[in-house]
Amino acid sequence: MKTVYSDLHNGHSGLLDLRGIEWRESAECPARANNVEAAIRGAGASEIITPDEFPEEKYLRLHAPDYLEFLKTVWQEWEASDELGENARPDTFVGAGMRHNADTTCVVGKLGRYSFDATSPFVEGSWEAIRTSANIALTGAEIIKGGDRSTFAACRPPGHHATETYCGGYCYLNNNALAAQSLLDSGASRIAILDVDYHHGNGTQSLFYARNDVLTISLHADPVVEYPYFLGYADEPGEGPGHGFNVNFPLPFGTGWDTYAPALDDAIAQISRFSPDALVVALGLDTFVGDPTTYFNIATEEFAHMGLAIGALGLKTLVVLEGGYSVDWIGENTVQFLDGLESS
Amino acid sequence: MKTVYSDLHNGHSGLLDLRGIEWRESAECPARANNVEAAIRGAGASEIITPDEFPEEKYLRLHAPDYLEFLKTVWQEWEASDELGENARPDTFVGAGMRHNADTTCVVGKLGRYSFDATSPFVEGSWEAIRTSANIALTGAEIIKGGDRSTFAACRPPGHHATETYCGGYCYLNNNALAAQSLLDSGASRIAILDVDYHHGNGTQSLFYARNDVLTISLHADPVVEYPYFLGYADEPGEGPGHGFNVNFPLPFGTGWDTYAPALDDAIAQISRFSPDALVVALGLDTFVGDPTTYFNIATEEFAHMGLAIGALGLKTLVVLEGGYSVDWIGENTVQFLDGLESS
Repeated sequence: MKTVYSDLHNGHSGLLDLRGIEWRESAECPARANNVEAAIRGAGASEIITPDEFPEEKYLRLHAPDYLEFLKTVWQEWEASDELGENARPDTFVGAGMRHNADTTCVVGKLGRYSFDATSPFVEGSWEAIRTSANIALTGAEIIKGGDRSTFAACRPPGHHATETYCGGYCYLNNNALAAQSLLDSGASRIAILDVDYHHGNGTQSLFYARNDVLTISLHADPVVEYPYFLGYADEPGEGPGHGFNVNFPLPFGTGWDTYAPALDDAIAQISRFSPDALVVALGLDTFVGDPTTYFNIATEEFAHMGLAIGALGLKTLVVLEGGYSVDWIGENTVQFLDGLESS
Repeated sequence: MKTVYSDLHNGHSGLLDLRGIEWRESAECPARANNVEAAIRGAGASEIITPDEFPEEKYLRLHAPDYLEFLKTVWQEWEASDELGENARPDTFVGAGMRHNADTTCVVGKLGRYSFDATSPFVEGSWEAIRTSANIALTGAEIIKGGDRSTFAACRPPGHHATETYCGGYCYLNNNALAAQSLLDSGASRIAILDVDYHHGNGTQSLFYARNDVLTISLHADPVVEYPYFLGYADEPGEGPGHGFNVNFPLPFGTGWDTYAPALDDAIAQISRFSPDALVVALGLDTFVGDPTTYFNIATEEFAHMGLAIGALGLKTLVVLEGGYSVDWIGENTVQFLDGLESS
């Protein structure tokens, strides 16, 4: 199985998370992807290749032109402003009844217009990392189109929270969704996206919510008690032509393999019935028992079970890296998943 | 002219504002209202009275029941949680396509569900201050109903950014809007609200946007360049029956009296043509040249001109305190405005 990776993500660094009123190095740090790459290299079973370049039209298949322009220019605008802070970050958001399309020229206003939280900051190297991360997923899609049974897109930053016009939750461009769209644009009729990140993939869901050519399924911590709070409930079946083509499995805090596996089996059965031309897996490793930011209890060897169960579908499968914040274990957990996937 | 004031606002203290990544005492601090009260007492021309109590039904005339329940209980929920920080504060918001009505039980989720920014934090004394501030405005309305020509409601926290279901911009309950509604509920047919705060009164606008019994007019820094960014543009005339009953005057950075006065004259002429039964003035003193947080250049003596011009309407007038962050000058600027209002 090929792995697509680039070290350009390293410029997206020096990011800060707020914990209470304390600023800490962001959990979404460069070591995540570096350790994934090192673990894959160490395992020796995967050829590591660099991503291709793609025209912006590929991003515009799912993201709005003004949002893309924002992503490209916001850091320079922040630097040219008198705003304080090493990270460009919003502080005001578009509440109900306010105008998302308001043409504010203020960089803080723009940041709020295009964000649903303050956890997707920008630094000088962000855009290069963001577009490279999308290119990694798109290159993965090309590899699948070329006939490989499976491939791994080692994306950073992640993407599944990003919507048509919003960044949030460490995400900017929706890598897994762009890859699925690319497969469709090259002749696939139906794609399934299975999101096993600890957090609901609100962006992916929203991008395909009214469509029946993409089945989106997400297993995640119940938004009643966990980020992103405002989407990811069981009663979100899709709308219009997409009705019946979105499935959420909200799971409780403390979920271990015994609770997770039956939900995963149900998801896999629904994917099998959908009979897609290919599967995209949004692979978050933050369901791990040792993840410092989350409340699930999946053990390292159980990521192999997860990969095995998904691989048993026998589908062409593109695995796209999403979250996972145990820097020490994210690499091994990824290798376990990919080994399981390949061995089935 | 009577002034309605209560020192219960002092429990809404220890609030922090973020400047870059530095936390500072919030600009919306207890000294603001204390200094207004002291200046009015020092001027000796106003009887200072304490507010009456009102049933919650008065708040529910404009705010949603679930939002009110949130305001009443959020601090206790924060204290009972393992969230960090001396202020209860949101970090995730309801983006487009997300569910404002999601029944998240997590206190951080609830904070995001009911906030459009992170500048309206909660501490132990917040609810007592919030409801008392609304009661101050409602007591002011009662005084006007009782026949006084004018009165001053020394509210803290302010209210004009608060909507039916959102706090933001230091605001929680919309004091000036609740007072206007109370006047209508006691038999008035038409009320005008003139908002002279530096920031657009997005909450007040939104509460009456589809109604023709309340004319809402706001003079403020252009949201193209200033908070709240996503409302307050010139092309917001009201909707449905309310079309033509909302008027915004977005003004540029650097606005002084020479720019402000013609816009104010226009606003006053429109109020005169509306012929309301009473006028509510949302009095922000943050247009002051010495305000540390803003970019207008109104001088202290020009607040007297402002009051004089508004008083010349000859309407029953309830003045409700909104913003103003020059702690040293907010008292004198308020006294100047009220003196001008009374002398016309």
